[in-house]
Order: sequence, then C-alpha cells, then structure tokens
Amino acid sequence: MTKERLYLYDTTLRDGQQTQGVQFSTDEKHAVARMLDDLGVDYIEGGWPGANPTDSEFFEDAPKTRARLTAFGMTKRAGRSAENDDVLAAVMNAGTQAVCIVGKTHDFHVEAALGITLEENIKNISASVAHIVVSGREALFDAEHFFDGLKSNPEYTLCAAKAAYDAGARWVVLCDTNGGALPHDVRAGVKALIEAGVPGSHIGIHTHNDTENAVANSLVAVAAGARQVQGTLNGLGERCGNANLTTLIPTLALKEPYASQFETGVTAEALTSLLRVSRRLDEILNRVPQKQAAYVGVSAFAHKAGLHASAIAKDPSTYEHIDPAQVGNARIVPMSNQAGQSNLRERLGAMGLEVAKGDPALARILDRVKEREAAGYSYDTAQASFEVLAREELGVMPDFFEVKRYRVTVERRRNKRNEMVSLSEAVVVVKVDGQKTLSVSESLGPDGSDQGPVHALSRALMKDLGRYAEHVADIRLTDFKVRITNGGTEAVTRVIIDSEDGQGRTWSTVGVSANIVDASFDALVDAIRWKLVRDGAQDGATL
Amino acid sequence: MTKERLYLYDTTLRDGQQTQGVQFSTDEKHAVARMLDDLGVDYIEGGWPGANPTDSEFFEDAPKTRARLTAFGMTKRAGRSAENDDVLAAVMNAGTQAVCIVGKTHDFHVEAALGITLEENIKNISASVAHIVVSGREALFDAEHFFDGLKSNPEYTLCAAKAAYDAGARWVVLCDTNGGALPHDVRAGVKALIEAGVPGSHIGIHTHNDTENAVANSLVAVAAGARQVQGTLNGLGERCGNANLTTLIPTLALKEPYASQFETGVTAEALTSLLRVSRRLDEILNRVPQKQAAYVGVSAFAHKAGLHASAIAKDPSTYEHIDPAQVGNARIVPMSNQAGQSNLRERLGAMGLEVAKGDPALARILDRVKEREAAGYSYDTAQASFEVLAREELGVMPDFFEVKRYRVTVERRRNKRNEMVSLSEAVVVVKVDGQKTLSVSESLGPDGSDQGPVHALSRALMKDLGRYAEHVADIRLTDFKVRITNGGTEAVTRVIIDSEDGQGRTWSTVGVSANIVDASFDALVDAIRWKLVRDGAQDGATL
Repeated sequence: MTKERLYLYDTTLRDGQQTQGVQFSTDEKHAVARMLDDLGVDYIEGGWPGANPTDSEFFEDAPKTRARLTAFGMTKRAGRSAENDDVLAAVMNAGTQAVCIVGKTHDFHVEAALGITLEENIKNISASVAHIVVSGREALFDAEHFFDGLKSNPEYTLCAAKAAYDAGARWVVLCDTNGGALPHDVRAGVKALIEAGVPGSHIGIHTHNDTENAVANSLVAVAAGARQVQGTLNGLGERCGNANLTTLIPTLALKEPYASQFETGVTAEALTSLLRVSRRLDEILNRVPQKQAAYVGVSAFAHKAGLHASAIAKDPSTYEHIDPAQVGNARIVPMSNQAGQSNLRERLGAMGLEVAKGDPALARILDRVKEREAAGYSYDTAQASFEVLAREELGVMPDFFEVKRYRVTVERRRNKRNEMVSLSEAVVVVKVDGQKTLSVSESLGPDGSDQGPVHALSRALMKDLGRYAEHVADIRLTDFKVRITNGGTEAVTRVIIDSEDGQGRTWSTVGVSANIVDASFDALVDAIRWKLVRDGAQDGATL
Repeated sequence: MTKERLYLYDTTLRDGQQTQGVQFSTDEKHAVARMLDDLGVDYIEGGWPGANPTDSEFFEDAPKTRARLTAFGMTKRAGRSAENDDVLAAVMNAGTQAVCIVGKTHDFHVEAALGITLEENIKNISASVAHIVVSGREALFDAEHFFDGLKSNPEYTLCAAKAAYDAGARWVVLCDTNGGALPHDVRAGVKALIEAGVPGSHIGIHTHNDTENAVANSLVAVAAGARQVQGTLNGLGERCGNANLTTLIPTLALKEPYASQFETGVTAEALTSLLRVSRRLDEILNRVPQKQAAYVGVSAFAHKAGLHASAIAKDPSTYEHIDPAQVGNARIVPMSNQAGQSNLRERLGAMGLEVAKGDPALARILDRVKEREAAGYSYDTAQASFEVLAREELGVMPDFFEVKRYRVTVERRRNKRNEMVSLSEAVVVVKVDGQKTLSVSESLGPDGSDQGPVHALSRALMKDLGRYAEHVADIRLTDFKVRITNGGTEAVTRVIIDSEDGQGRTWSTVGVSANIVDASFDALVDAIRWKLVRDGAQDGATL
C-alpha cells in the first residue's frame, strides 16, 4: 500500500521564540535550522522579517536547506494595496520560497481589533495571498482564531478561510490561537472546512497547549483530513507552548493508524536522532531538559514500580509502548526501595557489571540501598553514586585515594571600600599511593568573585590527586541541588551534584549529612571516584 | 438542567510517587491528603499498605477526610484463597472505606507474567473483588493493560473486566498502563465495555502521558460514557506522568460540553485555589514549578507577542481562553506597568501596608523586584523577604541590628576512636543599639551530633540580639531549600528558608549569592527582621 504524504511544518524559530525567557541569536537560529533540516521536516519557519533585527538578519544570510524556508508575516492592512504595504513588503523581501501570512477569520476580531468591515477583511486576505502567488512563491494562510470564529459566525469564518484557498494558497492553516479548542472542536472545524470546499490536502493545523491538548488536537485534525501539521521542537511556544513535534513525529511514525497510512520526511534513521535533537535545543537555550517529556525524557522509559520492573526484566514489551531505541532513548530501571533483585541485576548489567543470579552481593547491595534511603539518600537520579556503592559491595571499586581530613572557612567582612565581601578557604588532606598531600584553595573564580565554600573544597580536593590528576582535570560541576529531608528521625541535608566531563559524559552523585558542607563533599568524592572508574584510571590508563 | 456527577480519583500519593526523584515522607503524605480534600476530589489513593514502610505508616495514622481514602493493592495470587493472601490482607488491614486492586486483563500478561491460565486469572479477579465487597468496603478494579488487551484478545479482556463488575466492583477502571493508547483507542475501549454490559456509571479511566495524550484520553473516555477520572496533581507519575488533574479539573469545569453536562466535587471557589495547590505540592517536593503548565503555569497567561499584548490591553478575551482568576492565576503583560502597580498595591494591602495610588515608592518597589529577580531572587514563595524589601522602600522598616562580620569554619577529621567527625563553629559580630557584641556558637545539637554550619551561624546570630532576644527565642527553621540558578550571566545559589514561631506563624525568606553560606545568612537575617516587625519589636513590645 502506498502511503499518503503528511507534511511537517516547524515554527520553533518563530512561535517557539515567543516562549517566556527564549531569545535566539542569529547564529543559534542557523544551528536550529540545520538541525531541523537534518531531522527531515518539510518547512522551517524562520521568523518575521522586519519585526525584529534577529529575524531580519537570519533571512539576510539564509541557510541553504532541503526544507522550504518560510517567512512569516500578516495580511496587508486596509487602505493600501498588497504591493504598497511596507510590512508585507519586508516579508516578501526575505526572498523565501514560501510565505505564511496570518489573517483574521473571527468576526469579533475583525471588528474589535482591526476595526474594519468583514468584507474588507476578506478582500485583504485574497489580495495578500494573490500577491504572494503572483510573485512565484508558495503561499500559506494562517487562519487566526479559526475555531473560536467557527463558534461565533461559522459562515464568515469558513468564507474567510476559503477566500485564501481560492486566491491560490497552497495551505490554509487552522490556528487555535488562544489554545482553548478541545479535540472535538478541531475535528468539527476540519470537517466543516472540507465540506466548504477546501480539500484536506490543502489544510494545515496549528495548535497550542493551553489545555494539554495540542498533540491530540493535531492528531484528530489529521484523522479528519488535514495533511500539514505545525509545531515546535520540545513544545516551545507562547504561553503553554505549541504542539510538540518531538512527540508528534514518533507518534505519527510508530503508532496506528497513522504509521500505516502516512509517511513524513523523517526517516526511521533520523528518528533515532530525536533525543539528541531535543537535548541540543535545550543546550542552545540553556534550558533544563524535561525529565518527563514523552519519548525523549530521561524518565520516559524509567520503571520505578517494583511490579513493572520485574516484568520488564522478563520482557520489555510488557510495560513499554515502543522500543526506546527507536527515538534514541534508553530504558532505566532506577534503584529505589521498591526494586527487587531482578531489576538490580538488569541495572548492573547496563553498567557492564555482570552478576550471577543469587550472588549474595545482590542482597547486600539491596540492603545497603534500603538502609541509605532510610537515612535520606536517593539513588533514582544519583546513578553514579549507586554504581560506586554496588562496586564496593562487589569488590570491584578501587580505593584510588583516601581523604584524611579537611577544613573550610567562610568569612564575610567589610573591605577597604566598606563593601561586604566574602571569601572561603579550603584545606584538604588526601593520601594517594601512600603519599600524603595537603592542598589549599580559595573560592575566587577567574574574575576574582567569590564562588563559595563548595567550589573552594572541590578545587582543593582536585588540586593534587597525584597520578589521577589528568583524569579529574576536565570535570565540571553543572548542577547542585540541596534539600532537607528526613534521615531516620533527624532532619538531614541531601545534596545532588551533576557533573560533566570533556567527553560529554554526565553523571549524578548524592551526599547526605546534617552538615551541608559534608554532604556536598561526599557527593564530590563519589563524582571523582565514578569518573576514575569510567576512565579506567585503576589500570593506569591515560587520556 | 441537572448535571450528572463526575467522580475525581486522585493517585498523587501512589502513582505520583512513582515519579523519578519523588519520595514522600509520611508527614508530607498527610499534608497532600489534606490539600486534596480541601480541593474537593472524591477519592484519595494513599498508597499500597504493606509494599513500603511509608505507605503502611500513612494508613496506620490515616487522616480524617471527606474524600474516600483508598488503599491500593493487587488481586489475590493463584493457589490460595482471598482470605489467605497476605499481600491482599495487608491492604485490607489498612481499614479504608475503599480498596482498589489491580489485575490483569491482557492475555499475554496473564500467561507471560503470572504464568497461570486465563480462567484462573478471572477466578482470582472475581474472588478478590467479592472478598472486598463482603468486608463491607467499596471495591475498585484497576484493569491493567486494558487497551492493549483489547487489541490482542478482545473477548478475554472484556470478560475479565466484566467479571470484576459482576463480582460487585463499584468501579472498573480502564488503565492504559504503558501509556501507549491514543484517543481513538480509548473511545473504542470504553464503548466496547459498555456494550459488554458494564454501565458507563461504573467505568473509570486511568491514563499516562507517554504520547502527551493523557488529558485527551481522559476527556474522550468521559465523552464515551466513563464517569470516574483518575489522575495526579501536576501530572506526577511513573515515566512521563499520569493524567494531570490540575489541567483536567478546570477543563471539565470551564469548557463545553463538559461544563454544562457534569459537576464534580470541586466548587468554583476551590477552583481559584488551584494555582496555590499546584505550587504547594512543588514546594513539598522541592520541584521547580513548570512555567508552561496549562492553567497554573506562570507563563500560562503571559502574552509576549506584540500583536497579542496590544489586543489584550483592549479586551483580554481576545487572546485568553479563560479568565486566569478562575484558577487563581494572573495575566502577565510585559508592557503593562499600570497593571503591575495595581496588583502591587493589592498585595501590600494584604500585608497591612496601605499605599496611595501613584505613590512613587510603588515604581521603586517594582524596579527593585525586577532587578533582584534578574539577579536570581524569587519572591513567589518568599513573601517575608518581599515584605522586608517593600517596607524598606516605603521607609517603614526599622534597622533593629547591623551585622558587622561573621566567620564559619567546617572541619572534618578523625576522632580518638578513628571515626570521621565534623564540627562547625561560627562567630558573628552584631551591633544593636550602638553596642557591638561578639557571639560564637558551634554546630552540636542537643544530642551532641553535628548540625552543620548554617545552624551554627543561626545560633550565633540569635545568641545576643540585646533587647530583641526574647522575640527571636521561639524561631525555628523548618525547611531549607537550595537551588543553583542564573543571576545575570553567573550561576548563583538561591536559598529559601521556611521559619515558624511559637504562635504557629510560618514565613519564608530568600537569599542569593554565589556562596551558599552567604545566601543562607541573608535569608536568616530577613527571617529575623520579618519576625521582629510582626512582633512589633520596634515599639518596644514584649511577649
């Protein structure tokens, strides 16, 4: 059976930029466009030329993409011709193959926001679309507030949308601008427009996540006949975000009836890069990846419940709706007090530690995890600390070094200019290969500002680790989380440290103590020990 | 028209606890249960008695709620009677009004995971449900993998689900265990079970968000006839989370056709507490609130696009699908400084600070909050620090005392018994009423154990505050949260301290610095200053 083509339209660079706190630089826009092109979307909406300097700059030096680069703008205003509208001219001047213009289809907005007659608005839509077509470009019409308009004045809304199609628009895109439409509204809207004479092969869908229905609304639109889906990577976008292409792409590719009926430009191989694409965008924007994101979240295939974890060990298909490798993700069976020996062996296997069924070390590891979790530790994120603990019980954790003692001082006082300034100083005494070394560091960063006691401590600790020095040189602390929790009956501090190295490996460790500095120190020591094991430092490996 | 009753079943305390990184203490479970009861859900699933110590402890001292407290467990195992199954007995012994048991309805799972015959499984379901009913409890049957089972062996799946109903289950809950079902699957599943003879008024829906369809799947189930909706606050839950009740509750209450057709136990007034409930849960779990969350996210009604913001100023209904006040949220329009000032006056009024319209201090407060939030502060929860800041700008913040300098030392070394022990010591120099005092404290608690540098510091600071001593004597630090955040381009530490006094007042303060001890100290100083103001210490009030 030949599959029908479904078109993917990405608006990460335009609507995605409306996310609070998101502002792409021109270089970042180029990087994202390349990534989208490699992934295989059909259209890349680059921004609104003329609306802001970054967007204009992006189009001036537009990337060469297989995907159709699209400029966004709005229909010409009343009282001037399409040729003489300077806002539309700026959009046309970007010289893209495709141009998408937003226009009103809701009578209330035409009258309240534009203050023109309903007829004038339709003339503006027709003239603007015709202008784009005459210029030899592909025209897309974004029907703003389409679903609200349909409830207020269905005849007018359909007439306005149809006018764009009749004027030559390749796509009429039904936009749920305020995000309030539910799936049954979207189904009815697509069907009504098809009945009004616009074929489904010319209808697109653009949804927002204000009721968490952006993905469902896109799917129902396709089921009703629409053949273009608009969205953003990681669901970026105004307010609650746009339809999440990172979720829609695998759903359309892997789930029935979509998988059998349609094909998109995203190949099965490109699909395995989905997690990488998602993370790369977060890196560009310095956003923390959503752990619970569908398909690509670090928790998306994490099985914490004991019942699930033991069944997964027998057959992963028991509790997984797809194979995580299809989207570049991996299964996680976290250690927690609900886990049993079978998922423990699975977890150890994934770390390269093969342990025979019934090995008494398994029970010892579980006991120690349970005892430590009762004391306030948490291993479901701190996988590296778990590995260190397991290696100790299995007798495959080298000693590397021993910390004999340390001292940190934090002092705040007035300086000569009568400003309050702080300085921390740490002394760490470590024994490596029988040799005792005393290291001292203060807390000043490269720019001379105070970075606090944990940094001073980490610097002193890593300052002189003898033959392990080269292995720790590229460790970078990327996050540091602290909370007060219960350790037995006492309140204790739990510190989780995220680390990264020069090879891009990331790992998390945990420390617990009533004393926050001690807790941080223990997490730091675990982080270093994990890195030394992974580098094979015990075998005298060098970098 | 009388509305039909729709039942809300919350599983935050059971399935929500399957979220990676989430582990409630017994006290936290009590706090969440009270919050859910105030909100108006019908069922609160408290956990699995017998499966872990926290859950058992929670039920031993169960909260008194208007909602039906429900214990979760599984159907009896083969080869023993329901009366003699110890796992089921532990669940029954929790003594709850309602009991929900999960059982298999997918033939593959019965044979592969349980290793029993299809007939035995149905007998186990019937006998377990009957046992609950005979004990005078309300029985709920959670039909695991219902939608997958329906694809594999529809006759068997329907028969297993119907067996629970026939045995007296009040609710047969259709569970999309691996989260892979799409809305059309859920619609078909609910309809099939109704056709098989289970009335919709006895059907519940339990979905997961693995394809971002958990909310849509719940809505479509209700449209198809189901009358109980299960979910969690903030969408917590295994892997990608459960159906988000924080989204479903307002959608069912405010959106058609649901709003006209159904009523739930959540009143319009309780609905306005939704944002507060969502934030409180994040606080309990020390999770960062999702900015883009539907309805309750800080961005949910933030209008960044210029076109939208200017239309909103004319009429908010142009770009908002609901009035944000209905869920306790508020509009954010970056350009609207006027709206900012009126909100601010309202907030100050609530603190007993009446400020005239147009007072120049209002603009100064807004500027300083903006500047400090850019530096990493957050005043959403730290209301006491906000009040201190506002009082300073309004000229109604007494000086009380001045901190001249401090020093803290943390030391870890081996004691005489060769154990690693830690000790912190803090020196604080404070000026009160022109008098300089030097106080020193160490970090040992009443039982001789080390409590860390922040405790040493807080003790030294409060040790000698002259005539204010009696006011600070009853301050207790109840929580301490730390997070790395961005202050401009630098990574900084944000500390939030929760305090409580002898009168049961609780308040939160914030401190920000690259140095965690400095940040903690600033939050401590704010906490003391707020307490002194509230005690009227500046007027010489005594307790």
